[in-house]
Amino acid sequence: KKKKGSLIDTPFRLSERFTPLVALELVSDTKEEAITWLLQRIRDKQRNGGAELLVEQLRPGLGVQEKQNPNLFLIGASLQRLLSGAEDLGLFKEFNDGSMRGFTCTNKQNFKDFQGDGDGFLSVAECQYIIKHELDTLRAKDESHVPGHTQAKLYPGKSIIRRLLSKGIMVQMFPLHQKEELKRLTFSWYKKVKLSLQPLGKIQCNYEGQALYFGFLEYFTFALIPMALIGVPYYLFDWDDYDKYVIFAVFNLIWCTVILELWKRFSATLAYRWGTLSRKKAFEEPRPGFHGVLGFNPVTGREEPLYPNAKRQLRVYCVSLPFVLLCLYGSLYVMMIYFQMEGWALSLHDEDPTFWTGVLLFIPSIIYAVVIEVLNLIYRYAAEFLTEWENHRLESSYQNHLILKVLVFNFFNCFASLFYIAFVMQDMVLLRQSLATLLITSQILNQFMEAFLPYWLQRRRNKKMMRRVTKMRTQEDKELPIEEQVRLEADMSTYLGTFDDYLELFLLFGYVSLFSCVYPLAAVLVLLNNITEVYSDAFKMCRVFKRPFSDPASNIGVWQLAFEAMSVIAVVTNCALIGMSPQVKAYFPESDMQLILWTVAIEHGLLAVKFILTFLIPDVPKPIQIQLAKLEFESLEALKKKVNTWGMFSVI
Amino acid sequence: KKKKGSLIDTPFRLSERFTPLVALELVSDTKEEAITWLLQRIRDKQRNGGAELLVEQLRPGLGVQEKQNPNLFLIGASLQRLLSGAEDLGLFKEFNDGSMRGFTCTNKQNFKDFQGDGDGFLSVAECQYIIKHELDTLRAKDESHVPGHTQAKLYPGKSIIRRLLSKGIMVQMFPLHQKEELKRLTFSWYKKVKLSLQPLGKIQCNYEGQALYFGFLEYFTFALIPMALIGVPYYLFDWDDYDKYVIFAVFNLIWCTVILELWKRFSATLAYRWGTLSRKKAFEEPRPGFHGVLGFNPVTGREEPLYPNAKRQLRVYCVSLPFVLLCLYGSLYVMMIYFQMEGWALSLHDEDPTFWTGVLLFIPSIIYAVVIEVLNLIYRYAAEFLTEWENHRLESSYQNHLILKVLVFNFFNCFASLFYIAFVMQDMVLLRQSLATLLITSQILNQFMEAFLPYWLQRRRNKKMMRRVTKMRTQEDKELPIEEQVRLEADMSTYLGTFDDYLELFLLFGYVSLFSCVYPLAAVLVLLNNITEVYSDAFKMCRVFKRPFSDPASNIGVWQLAFEAMSVIAVVTNCALIGMSPQVKAYFPESDMQLILWTVAIEHGLLAVKFILTFLIPDVPKPIQIQLAKLEFESLEALKKKVNTWGMFSVI
Repeated sequence: KKKKGSLIDTPFRLSERFTPLVALELVSDTKEEAITWLLQRIRDKQRNGGAELLVEQLRPGLGVQEKQNPNLFLIGASLQRLLSGAEDLGLFKEFNDGSMRGFTCTNKQNFKDFQGDGDGFLSVAECQYIIKHELDTLRAKDESHVPGHTQAKLYPGKSIIRRLLSKGIMVQMFPLHQKEELKRLTFSWYKKVKLSLQPLGKIQCNYEGQALYFGFLEYFTFALIPMALIGVPYYLFDWDDYDKYVIFAVFNLIWCTVILELWKRFSATLAYRWGTLSRKKAFEEPRPGFHGVLGFNPVTGREEPLYPNAKRQLRVYCVSLPFVLLCLYGSLYVMMIYFQMEGWALSLHDEDPTFWTGVLLFIPSIIYAVVIEVLNLIYRYAAEFLTEWENHRLESSYQNHLILKVLVFNFFNCFASLFYIAFVMQDMVLLRQSLATLLITSQILNQFMEAFLPYWLQRRRNKKMMRRVTKMRTQEDKELPIEEQVRLEADMSTYLGTFDDYLELFLLFGYVSLFSCVYPLAAVLVLLNNITEVYSDAFKMCRVFKRPFSDPASNIGVWQLAFEAMSVIAVVTNCALIGMSPQVKAYFPESDMQLILWTVAIEHGLLAVKFILTFLIPDVPKPIQIQLAKLEFESLEALKKKVNTWGMFSVI
Repeated sequence: KKKKGSLIDTPFRLSERFTPLVALELVSDTKEEAITWLLQRIRDKQRNGGAELLVEQLRPGLGVQEKQNPNLFLIGASLQRLLSGAEDLGLFKEFNDGSMRGFTCTNKQNFKDFQGDGDGFLSVAECQYIIKHELDTLRAKDESHVPGHTQAKLYPGKSIIRRLLSKGIMVQMFPLHQKEELKRLTFSWYKKVKLSLQPLGKIQCNYEGQALYFGFLEYFTFALIPMALIGVPYYLFDWDDYDKYVIFAVFNLIWCTVILELWKRFSATLAYRWGTLSRKKAFEEPRPGFHGVLGFNPVTGREEPLYPNAKRQLRVYCVSLPFVLLCLYGSLYVMMIYFQMEGWALSLHDEDPTFWTGVLLFIPSIIYAVVIEVLNLIYRYAAEFLTEWENHRLESSYQNHLILKVLVFNFFNCFASLFYIAFVMQDMVLLRQSLATLLITSQILNQFMEAFLPYWLQRRRNKKMMRRVTKMRTQEDKELPIEEQVRLEADMSTYLGTFDDYLELFLLFGYVSLFSCVYPLAAVLVLLNNITEVYSDAFKMCRVFKRPFSDPASNIGVWQLAFEAMSVIAVVTNCALIGMSPQVKAYFPESDMQLILWTVAIEHGLLAVKFILTFLIPDVPKPIQIQLAKLEFESLEALKKKVNTWGMFSVI
């Protein structure tokens, strides 16, 4: 009873001393000495090799009847520490003259939003990123192991947090949602009707790394509008003659080249505004799962595990590659079964056409779509296992290998049947029908798996917690106390990065760019899907998942490449579809050879034009190029001045 | 009589005070006050905005009866000045631990070849490059015009040398050949027989910027050996069946992809060893011919002429592009005339075949080859004029536009007829014959125009000078005194950069990669040409031309792109040639359509493999990647330390 009272009296007692930004959870059986040691290292001054952060144990919440993990810690930092951390990281902020510059403490008054002591200058996401960076680079000194845990070996220079994570002593480390900001964000994000889909600036403040994904989602959605506008009359007026489809295919070609080029420019603009375009990446630490023989890193000179590259290459090319190929073969096999089923349903319908056999016609496609989703899911786990086993040193290299594996399989799974129908069976009616079924089924499945299922699970947990809390205290205050809030967030699902979201957009882009000339409504469907995606993603980020750490990126990386590869394939596919259309065939009545040669020639020409366009259109808009050049020029001039000063010193 | 004596007594009087590195020639009617002013600015201390270099007027040479330009100046610098200039430029030199680092005066003792006061640490080419840089960045202060030349306007920050050049007050500025070094170089370059073709390290010391071209030439020559080895038996044993040509074409495909990828790695290794891989380019000044309305550069903030980009684009796309297309059309027209002549000669030979009509068969090809060379020459001048008129701000942009124009036309001119014969006429015998004629004629012409003609002209001048000198002095000393040597060099032709040399290699690469499967001897011919090219180029650089300023480059730039484009075209061409071969046609006896579809599919597959290979093979070899990463890591760590120190200062 007393406990409850004291909690209600000072619900934010902790936050009066410092704003908790990041939570850190250790397993409940962590030794007392390990905790003391860790907290001391976190609090220690930087000159002693500490992180110089503020840390406090979370008080036990309500419901002591349940088994609660007491080892939850809240981490914050003083304003001064955050600002020096920002300088350390080379954070780019807006300068007084509107350009973006690397933040420095000595120059802080000249930054645009810096007022007073600098409170509110850094966004919450930036503060959390700084704290994460400082914790990540907290290195062992002369400890040989974590105190009390002899199995968790340490050596000078080893990142402590990563060792705790890899040995399972640390359960997780996650940034906290900021209730007030979140409320404002959710309102402007998915509760307000507006012209632009998303408040990108505000999203960027909260989810720095994911903001570029949301930027891309919004861009892609708007880019689909012209395609959708052109597609609708085709559907409404039932323009089934291929004559008009040729026009549509040509438009399609131009569209997918142009939007990707413009996206690069738009992305550069966004990244510049957000200060991530020219931020230098710190040297990546080995990822937690990486293992090897202890040695010295040739670059940093630090002691760390080394794993021979040749051995990794061997695993990649001799195990992973054959496995992927085998999976592709398996997927091909499944596809063939689907076509047999399809044929069987068709023959049944032809024999004795009733309403039920008409429904039966759709069954194989639906089964196939579901099977594909299941296969994708299984394959995904296998790919993760294999990529883990390949033992990549860097998280980025792990991600790239994983993305490549999953991408190839998903692409094959989703499009192989369509290619087969289009180019082997040459059945445009079936193609249209398959495309529609695939598109709609996978959309519904995706939305369900992605947002509603996690939401429903989270809601159950949430309600349980609420019920427990309200049972124990008066109804007057609907807010959860911080103790409960943190514990609630600790139980939330972890947001696994933008991988699945990009993959979904990639496949949708494929449906539109490859085949929309036979099913013009595809663009409309994808457009609708994107709009709901904006809302479900927003919802997911704000309500369902733990807040993710921001991961500043200057571009969408390997995905840009994937989308461009898709647009090249689109040129080939569209040319082939045009070449196969009876309308075009009519121009070459006497010889198919002439037709094919012309198609191939035009396709090569289009590809050449595409590459030349890519080369001619600068990836970074002129004004930003000038800003970047200006910054570089100034730093060169500063260097020169420094050299001259040094020269004078050496003369003296 | 007295004058002559004093000259002989102290033939290197100047060089006792300083080693002359660069010569500078003003027009003979330059006003005295302009000369005084210029020399004073060159000699002035850096803190007063001078260049702090040593400069001396060249004494009049022998032969006062002739009109000599008295305004020739020799420029040198103190060792200290050169070293600080090297630091200023960010020159990369080999460090004690074998890595390449930016040179700094404070750290000079830790560089590998730094001994004593540092004499001989910088190569002559580097010293000359430093002096050129210092002269180029000698800027006007508050002068409104060059004293005595009111038409040569100046404004604060304007490069003085560039204004003098653009107003024709300065005739030229060129680095001097160093007799002793040159002798050693010429010996090891083209007088000694050796395994590697060229002493690349020594060439690099002397011709820094051109060294990468010589590196490429050597690499390309060695890369041709496997092609040549495979080509010889084809020629010797008269393997005329297309069966074997298919194998050759496949080999060709692999070869041209692999050598370009490996070259990138080799080039990175060379550039790293020479310290140009990661050297930062200084901000480019506007080129001397650039004109516009005076304004402020948005990047540097300096006053300089501005020219609207839109206007330039208009000139490029509305004048230059149509002009190039028109020229291509004209070239096509000439080609058609050639085919008519060819047909006429053939019919004459068929009617009444004699020895002379047999010779006549070769005449059209030879005429065509000569006409092509002439057309190329005329077009070249037009392209230079047009590119000049487009008014590019930067030399690099001017060069790229010029290269593109010349490249397209040359490519078209050289290969259009071959494509026509191969794919429209489908006459492999004629193709082989044309290829041989084109290859041999253009080689002979090139070698003549490039080396022998200039050499002959230079020899005449040289002899005249020698005769004059020997007439006036005793025979004992065969060396020219420095006064005469400098004047002789001032009269030498100017080396116009590696443009023509690269272009030649590009076209030769085209002959080999596109069509060598129908004329396997092409590789052998090109190999022979390359070997003579090494010698004639070496000879040209050492004996015929003024020494060029070095122009450090980290790669071969736009040429890499051009070669890669060529290798893509080679894939297409070779696939088509294979598809057209009767041997392959025999596999698809019933339908041409099947054959074409397969050919196209395989071609697409090969292109995809090519792009994936390009993507997979890292452009920079692993050891160099590690070195670069190490350097970057160290600079990041240093920055961090500095920030921390600053933080401490600000705390104090």
